Amino acid sequence: MRQYLLPDTFEGEDHVLLTGKESQYLVKVLRLKIAQHFMGRDREGKVWDLCLESIGKNNCVLGCRVPDAGEPLVSTDVLPSYSGPYPHLFLYQCLCKGKKNEQIVRQATELGVEEIVLLTSTYCTKEFSKKNDKNLGGQKDRLEGQIKEAIQQSGSPIPTHLHQEMLPLTSFPQHWNNRGLALFFHQSERADQKSLTQLLSNHPIESPVALLVGSEGGFSEEECNFLEAAGCKPVLLNTNILRAETAALYGLSAIQVVLTEREN
Amino acid sequence: MRQYLLPDTFEGEDHVLLTGKESQYLVKVLRLKIAQHFMGRDREGKVWDLCLESIGKNNCVLGCRVPDAGEPLVSTDVLPSYSGPYPHLFLYQCLCKGKKNEQIVRQATELGVEEIVLLTSTYCTKEFSKKNDKNLGGQKDRLEGQIKEAIQQSGSPIPTHLHQEMLPLTSFPQHWNNRGLALFFHQSERADQKSLTQLLSNHPIESPVALLVGSEGGFSEEECNFLEAAGCKPVLLNTNILRAETAALYGLSAIQVVLTEREN
Repeated sequence: MRQYLLPDTFEGEDHVLLTGKESQYLVKVLRLKIAQHFMGRDREGKVWDLCLESIGKNNCVLGCRVPDAGEPLVSTDVLPSYSGPYPHLFLYQCLCKGKKNEQIVRQATELGVEEIVLLTSTYCTKEFSKKNDKNLGGQKDRLEGQIKEAIQQSGSPIPTHLHQEMLPLTSFPQHWNNRGLALFFHQSERADQKSLTQLLSNHPIESPVALLVGSEGGFSEEECNFLEAAGCKPVLLNTNILRAETAALYGLSAIQVVLTEREN
Repeated sequence: MRQYLLPDTFEGEDHVLLTGKESQYLVKVLRLKIAQHFMGRDREGKVWDLCLESIGKNNCVLGCRVPDAGEPLVSTDVLPSYSGPYPHLFLYQCLCKGKKNEQIVRQATELGVEEIVLLTSTYCTKEFSKKNDKNLGGQKDRLEGQIKEAIQQSGSPIPTHLHQEMLPLTSFPQHWNNRGLALFFHQSERADQKSLTQLLSNHPIESPVALLVGSEGGFSEEECNFLEAAGCKPVLLNTNILRAETAALYGLSAIQVVLTEREN
C-alpha cells in the first residue's frame, strides 16, 4: 500500500473508526503498529497524516491530521512515484463483458483517470442494452473495490470516481458539457482524420480530455457520425485491431505519453 | 478472425490437413463453407490465400496459394487494420504470477511485438526462480494459445514468437546481442535519466527496440546497475506506480506511440 484511501463517509473528522475488512487490512495484513504514522488520501484527493491510535476487537481507530505545508509524509512503501504533471483524463467506456470492465476500471485508475463513466451502446453486452437498466447493480461494488485497491497500490494522487449510473452513448454530449477535447478511438479510417499528436498539439496539459472507447464490437457507423456531430474527434490508432480492454489502456497511455513527454 | 494462423508444421505445402480443434474452429465456429477463400498467415508472417476445399469427419483440408503481388485478400472480418509502419519491438518480461503472464503475452501480441522472452529475476515468482527450471512447462501451451488467438483476432502482420525457454536476466546481453536500443522501465529516479522522446529521438522506426519489464517487485538495485552496465537505458514512466501487467502494455504502447506518431 502506497497510501490509504479513507472511506467515502469520511468528512474531515480528527478520528475515524474502521471496522471489519478495513480494520483487518491495516492491522492483520499490513501489520501496522500502534502510533505508526502513514499517508492517507480522502475521496477528494486531499492528503492526510494518519496515525493508528488504538486496536479493538475487529476494529481500529485512526487519528487524522492535515499535514503542514511541505511536511514529508511516511508511506508504507518506499518507492517514490511520479509527481506530475498529470493530464486530466476522463474515460467514457462502453460496457464490456464481465470481468473486462473490472480490468479496464482498475488500469484506468492506476494511470490516474479522474472519472470513469460506463456507457451503453449499440454493440455492448445485450444483457445491459436490453434491460435499459441504469444501475450498475452487482458490478458496482466490485468496480469500486478495484478503484480503491488501485489507488492504494499505485499511490495515485488522483481520486478516480466512477459515475454512479450507466449512461446511454447519446447522453455523452450533455454529461461532458464541452469541458475540453473529446476523442474517440476506432479502427477504420474516417474523413478528416488527424493524428493524436496533431489533435493534442494545442491542448494544454491542464485542460480536460475525454476518451470514448467502444465495447467488443466498437462503435457503429451511426454512433461515429453522432459523436463527430457532437464535436468529438476520431483517432485512428497506429496499431493492430485491439480488444476493447487493450484499446482502453492503449488509448489512455497514448494520450498520457504525448502530453507528459512534451512537458517533461 | 481477421486472419488464420497456419500451424507451426506448415512449410509452404499447397494443401494442409487440419484436425480436431483447428478444424472445428473453422467449420463449426466460423462456419466457413466449401470453396470459401480467406486470408492466412504462416509463422514467418507470410500471407497465404486459403480455400476450404473439403470437410471430413473432425477434419478439413485447406488449399494454400501464394497470392499474386497486389492481389486483394478476403478477410472473414471487414474491419481494415493499420498497415504500418510498425516499430520492431522485443519484450523481455520478468515472469509474473499465474494468469498475468498470459495477459501480458496476449496484449504484447495484439500490439505487434516480434519476440517475447520470459526472464527470471530477483523478485520474480519464487516457484520459478528457485527451481531454476528453464522450461516453461505447463504454461507454454497456454501462452502459445494466447499468441495464436491474438494474431488471429488482431490481424497482426507480425508473427510474434515466444522464446522457448526462460532465461535468467543476466543472459539478456548475450541474447539481445546489441541489436538496437534496449530500454528498461522502472519507477525510481536514476542518474542520467532521459525521457522516452529523447531516447527515441535518433532511433529509426526500422531499428529494433528491446523493452525490459520487471515482475511484481520490479528490478533490484543490482539488476538496474547490471542492465545499465550492459548498455540498457533506464526510462522513468510519467505516471503512477503500475502493476507489472499494466507496465508492460503501457511501456510497449508508449514506444509504439512515440515512434509511429513521428512517422504518420
